[in-house]
Amino acid sequence: MQMPTPNQNVLSRKAQIVERLQGVLRDGAVIHSESEVRAYECDALTAYKCPPLCAVLPTSTEEVAAVLKVCHEMGVPVVPRGSGTSLAGGALPTADCVILGVARLNSVLETNYDDRYIRVQSGRTNLSVTGAVEAMDFFYAPDPSSQLACAIAGNVAMNSGGAHCLKYGVTTNNLMGVKMVLMDGTITEIGGAHLDAAGLDLLGLICGSEGQLGVVTEATLRILRKPEGARPVLMAFNDNEVAGACVADIIKAGVLPVAIEFMDRLCIETTENYAKAGYPDCEALLIVEVEGAPEEIDEQLALIKDIALKHDPVELREAQDEEEAARIWLGRKSAFGAIGQISDYMCLDGTIPVSSLPMVLRRIGELSDEFGLKVGNVFHAGDGNMHPLICYDANKPGDLELCEAMGAEILKLCVDAGGCLTGEHGVGIEKRDLMTHQYAQQDLDIQMAVKDVFDPEWLLNPAKVFPLDSSASRRIAAE
Amino acid sequence: MQMPTPNQNVLSRKAQIVERLQGVLRDGAVIHSESEVRAYECDALTAYKCPPLCAVLPTSTEEVAAVLKVCHEMGVPVVPRGSGTSLAGGALPTADCVILGVARLNSVLETNYDDRYIRVQSGRTNLSVTGAVEAMDFFYAPDPSSQLACAIAGNVAMNSGGAHCLKYGVTTNNLMGVKMVLMDGTITEIGGAHLDAAGLDLLGLICGSEGQLGVVTEATLRILRKPEGARPVLMAFNDNEVAGACVADIIKAGVLPVAIEFMDRLCIETTENYAKAGYPDCEALLIVEVEGAPEEIDEQLALIKDIALKHDPVELREAQDEEEAARIWLGRKSAFGAIGQISDYMCLDGTIPVSSLPMVLRRIGELSDEFGLKVGNVFHAGDGNMHPLICYDANKPGDLELCEAMGAEILKLCVDAGGCLTGEHGVGIEKRDLMTHQYAQQDLDIQMAVKDVFDPEWLLNPAKVFPLDSSASRRIAAE
Repeated sequence: MQMPTPNQNVLSRKAQIVERLQGVLRDGAVIHSESEVRAYECDALTAYKCPPLCAVLPTSTEEVAAVLKVCHEMGVPVVPRGSGTSLAGGALPTADCVILGVARLNSVLETNYDDRYIRVQSGRTNLSVTGAVEAMDFFYAPDPSSQLACAIAGNVAMNSGGAHCLKYGVTTNNLMGVKMVLMDGTITEIGGAHLDAAGLDLLGLICGSEGQLGVVTEATLRILRKPEGARPVLMAFNDNEVAGACVADIIKAGVLPVAIEFMDRLCIETTENYAKAGYPDCEALLIVEVEGAPEEIDEQLALIKDIALKHDPVELREAQDEEEAARIWLGRKSAFGAIGQISDYMCLDGTIPVSSLPMVLRRIGELSDEFGLKVGNVFHAGDGNMHPLICYDANKPGDLELCEAMGAEILKLCVDAGGCLTGEHGVGIEKRDLMTHQYAQQDLDIQMAVKDVFDPEWLLNPAKVFPLDSSASRRIAAE
Repeated sequence: MQMPTPNQNVLSRKAQIVERLQGVLRDGAVIHSESEVRAYECDALTAYKCPPLCAVLPTSTEEVAAVLKVCHEMGVPVVPRGSGTSLAGGALPTADCVILGVARLNSVLETNYDDRYIRVQSGRTNLSVTGAVEAMDFFYAPDPSSQLACAIAGNVAMNSGGAHCLKYGVTTNNLMGVKMVLMDGTITEIGGAHLDAAGLDLLGLICGSEGQLGVVTEATLRILRKPEGARPVLMAFNDNEVAGACVADIIKAGVLPVAIEFMDRLCIETTENYAKAGYPDCEALLIVEVEGAPEEIDEQLALIKDIALKHDPVELREAQDEEEAARIWLGRKSAFGAIGQISDYMCLDGTIPVSSLPMVLRRIGELSDEFGLKVGNVFHAGDGNMHPLICYDANKPGDLELCEAMGAEILKLCVDAGGCLTGEHGVGIEKRDLMTHQYAQQDLDIQMAVKDVFDPEWLLNPAKVFPLDSSASRRIAAE
């Protein structure tokens, strides 16, 4: 993966930059020794690594503003970082950048059960947002697989989803407002604890902007009352495409399960060896979960099982109690980790219209044969958010490049099927060069011109999202 | 209401402009005689009128592009217009503008029941979108009161809602993609029939941008399967604040009715005289509707009625059949028309956190006494979207100005309660000068800089949304 040439002028002033940053932060908040900055050299896209110039860990919005002001004045690029769980390299440093980590900004600022929102600092982890309100029987809906670790800052940056987003929507549907610091240090508030915005909807623009427009330090999030109960049913099929067709039929019927998850044989077998979830021997599994009062659950599951029976399932297993429900989910939640035990892998994140699931699954199988790389499919099928896991050997020369080439083919396939390069992981560096497959140059120009408004010097996360040659003139003009 | 001085240079070239426009459109598509342009002199904010230079009615995206190209080359401002139902003056012409009406762009281009979307031209009316899919038991969720007349173009421009948006969200939650023409004639596509967007989420930005960024000619809209059934319950209370508290308690309990509508005594009495819906004699009415299978409806309504009973209702009337349900809704749907029969009125559109409903209703009552103008309250209470109707006499000198001053106080009250100037009607000209109460100058500067990206010459709907003095330098620089 090509990275931009680091700015020598910035590199040569490292000592001065560190000193200026130390002047605006508390002791210990600037990390600059060669050994310590290694902790920030990559995110969860571990194929790429680059230690930053230094890293800072501010503890307040005002400190974030002070850091950005210093970097703005000195022309230093800044890469914001939540918990570093990005699968797309969204928090990958450049050698000339300051990593701005929000991990110490993790307080709950306000909870309001009457108006159903919580206001948190952006470094708080996703799961601990729910943790702060669950005693009152509330929860925060978006649930990325990394929810134990990932920060709200990253969720906002990537517009993260999760298994239960079929019903509840992704981050943008649950985010009500942010406090954000612009690159010049200006603190601004966008949205709030109310419906809609007057004037332009900048909140929708900020969500999913991958840290390119500002550093979000606080977020106001919609919280929801926990449903009375939930129950999954596990459906086993002897054909990927048939399982895909079953998903399409459930969606078409207009029932709205809270989640429809898909796993193929590679994932089922690997997971079973690792987590012992008791999954059946089959080609494809669906986990379909519905929520509500017991009678509602019965009624919805009856309808869903009727649809499934038309597709000749090998097994239909409805959870009889909480323990069985937990076991059904255990396998799905362990899938990424299980695959990681047997192989290096790259996790893709394309979306497609649900009706093209069977075709896309077939074509991924063909690509796997053509490239000679195994692919596991485990993903949010209900909203067409695919997560093919391409297995490769990081120690075998050329295998990563082969894997990337195959990943590019799969993502182009998603776009050509009427879908999109990314559902919830973001573009980062991973899909940067594929943006030209989704967008015409004039579309990219408009997106980049919007970045110009917020960050005219292109100092914030400048080598992400856009193809390097498209953004080159802007980044160079800024130096 | 102050309007910008028309550009004399444009006015003096009227004949030439009309000729150029006639050159790119079919016969009869350019309306320019003094008597005919009067049809476009106002929208539903009828207090303000100004005939445009001329109006055009293109029939394709390509014709829209040709019109914009001509206007761009000649420096002529363009005001896009859907059906002209804006209550905020969003389609009010300036004397030097071309009205670009999309009424002839009203075809259905594609329906896809498997992936649950419909693609329409933007001049199609809201209700006829549902009309195109209801035979297959589908519907389009946002339902503004003007849905018989209002166009999807206007819905997208204003991010319109409606009574049933408590459950289904507003336009931005149901819009998947647009085809849009930029002011220079470039045709661009944003979003599509898939989840999420790669790169910046321009679709969220376009929705609600009040025709300031481009002219939307096509929209891809989410369609939903019709629920099995729906049933309203009418709740009567002898105190506005108590009714407001009941709404807050229903929301707090975590049940999600499809609609919670509120009417106060003035609206109840006026409507009853007009529509004979059989409403009881009381201070405040709520209409709470739930959807689903019969048992689900029973269960949800039981819970909701339990909550209502704690607030000493005068009456709880659950619809026993379809006819009674229709009668309960008849009054609510006739309310605006009924008030219009007895008085001129201005309809406001602020949002507030639901928990502050009782306080805001009390304060509106006090303002009504202070200003000596009657106020009717009829609104979407469940999501805190207020629609105070201020009654005034258009023939009494000074009364409109008094009404506007009072409206400004109410909208400031909404903002101060933690809400927002507009829920679904948009800013238009009506709330232009109040934007400084919601936003700091730096916030407005960012919003205007985003407009610069799409329309650097400020030719599209240039006198709307932003205070005239804030936008003056940009509009003048462009001339």
